[in-house]
Amino acid sequence: MTLPQASLYELWYWPTIQGRGEFVRLSLEYAGLSYVDMARRSDEEGGGEEALVRSLKRTDTTYVPFAPPYLVSNDFVIGQTANILLFLGSRHGLAPEDEAGWHWVHQLQLTIADFVVEAHDTHHPLGVGQYYEDQKQAAQRRSEEFRASRVDKYLGYFEGVLKRNKDGDGVYGSELTYADLSLFQVVEGMHYAFPRLMQQKRAKYPKLQRIREIVAASPRVAAYLKSERRISFNEEGIFRHYDELDAPA
Amino acid sequence: MTLPQASLYELWYWPTIQGRGEFVRLSLEYAGLSYVDMARRSDEEGGGEEALVRSLKRTDTTYVPFAPPYLVSNDFVIGQTANILLFLGSRHGLAPEDEAGWHWVHQLQLTIADFVVEAHDTHHPLGVGQYYEDQKQAAQRRSEEFRASRVDKYLGYFEGVLKRNKDGDGVYGSELTYADLSLFQVVEGMHYAFPRLMQQKRAKYPKLQRIREIVAASPRVAAYLKSERRISFNEEGIFRHYDELDAPA
Repeated sequence: MTLPQASLYELWYWPTIQGRGEFVRLSLEYAGLSYVDMARRSDEEGGGEEALVRSLKRTDTTYVPFAPPYLVSNDFVIGQTANILLFLGSRHGLAPEDEAGWHWVHQLQLTIADFVVEAHDTHHPLGVGQYYEDQKQAAQRRSEEFRASRVDKYLGYFEGVLKRNKDGDGVYGSELTYADLSLFQVVEGMHYAFPRLMQQKRAKYPKLQRIREIVAASPRVAAYLKSERRISFNEEGIFRHYDELDAPA
Repeated sequence: MTLPQASLYELWYWPTIQGRGEFVRLSLEYAGLSYVDMARRSDEEGGGEEALVRSLKRTDTTYVPFAPPYLVSNDFVIGQTANILLFLGSRHGLAPEDEAGWHWVHQLQLTIADFVVEAHDTHHPLGVGQYYEDQKQAAQRRSEEFRASRVDKYLGYFEGVLKRNKDGDGVYGSELTYADLSLFQVVEGMHYAFPRLMQQKRAKYPKLQRIREIVAASPRVAAYLKSERRISFNEEGIFRHYDELDAPA
């Protein structure tokens, strides 16, 4: 991976998954910001998972994060995905400037975060300390409820938000915000993890499909998605494809 | 319940539980703000659960919340607990004024929110659509991991945050913030839900116990806790006491 010489931001996140870090990566990429994905560097350059874990014990700041992702700039160490997006969004034009809109987009991001937890817990209902293979039965029960009622509750809500915005394609006003980038990621992730379910539901959510296409086609994101910087979905991240958790064939 | 005539804020939340609404109530009370807990009014006054559910379909605003709690002021409808606290904190002196501190306290609040989800999921690992009684076995497995590793991971983190702040008793600077009020609520809730576990761990977290005492003794919160406005912990909320989920006797 070729790294920029002078980077504005350091992103610290697990190097082999999209996970929560992907919401941050998408904002950095869409805004064309210079950053280094620190743990994706080689071991010699100070990257790797161990370096990430070590970095969480940093003593050069008051603001020690609980978990990745976190972002380092000249004057900041900042953790929690939605908090990072709030920061980047305000600084780099990915959030509305009016107070009501600014809080509204943050509210939507936090609701996306709730959905992400529920999507994750379909495969880990009994806790992150046990392998999927050791909680498969519980995962099937949890997934049934998720498919039957939670997915429509959330996606229906976001579809309604998009529909009510008469000024543009995104959630608010005429410009895309970080919440739109996050919605792209959620729809992508859901199609990866639950392809049959999402195929069935596709026609119900035209606005969400549209925002997915718009984000994917935006020049910087399109370039990012084709690059090696975009890690593929896999069965270590949040959105995992386990055929037995998807809708019956 | 006697209601103030002219209230600054409307709080909309479930009327019979502390739940996530309690984090908002504590900030409103600590700051001495005038508010009406809308769904706790009588049916004649427009209160009750049905009124709350109806209110979520409101059409007088762009900013329709996904779920309670949400807050209404003259110029705002604002949802998501951490977002409401960010708003109240900034307006009413419960958040630091410097940008780094302001983001830091929000980061901590979001980490508290993550812990609250995990505490909730000990009794509902298979989803909110099924009764506790129908997922007791799964709840016991999830609780075991929660007690064995998650509680110390989170409480140890917060204890470290409090320890590193040399300027005061709370998480940041010399004044209490909304995150300190939330830590009070978390420690209270944990003692209610897991009394034996927390008795064993008590000595490990002196700073958390101290912030709990300081918040409880602050005049407005002390008055609130004695009032009928404070709903008791119960088995409908986030922190529920099920003896079989607590540490073995």
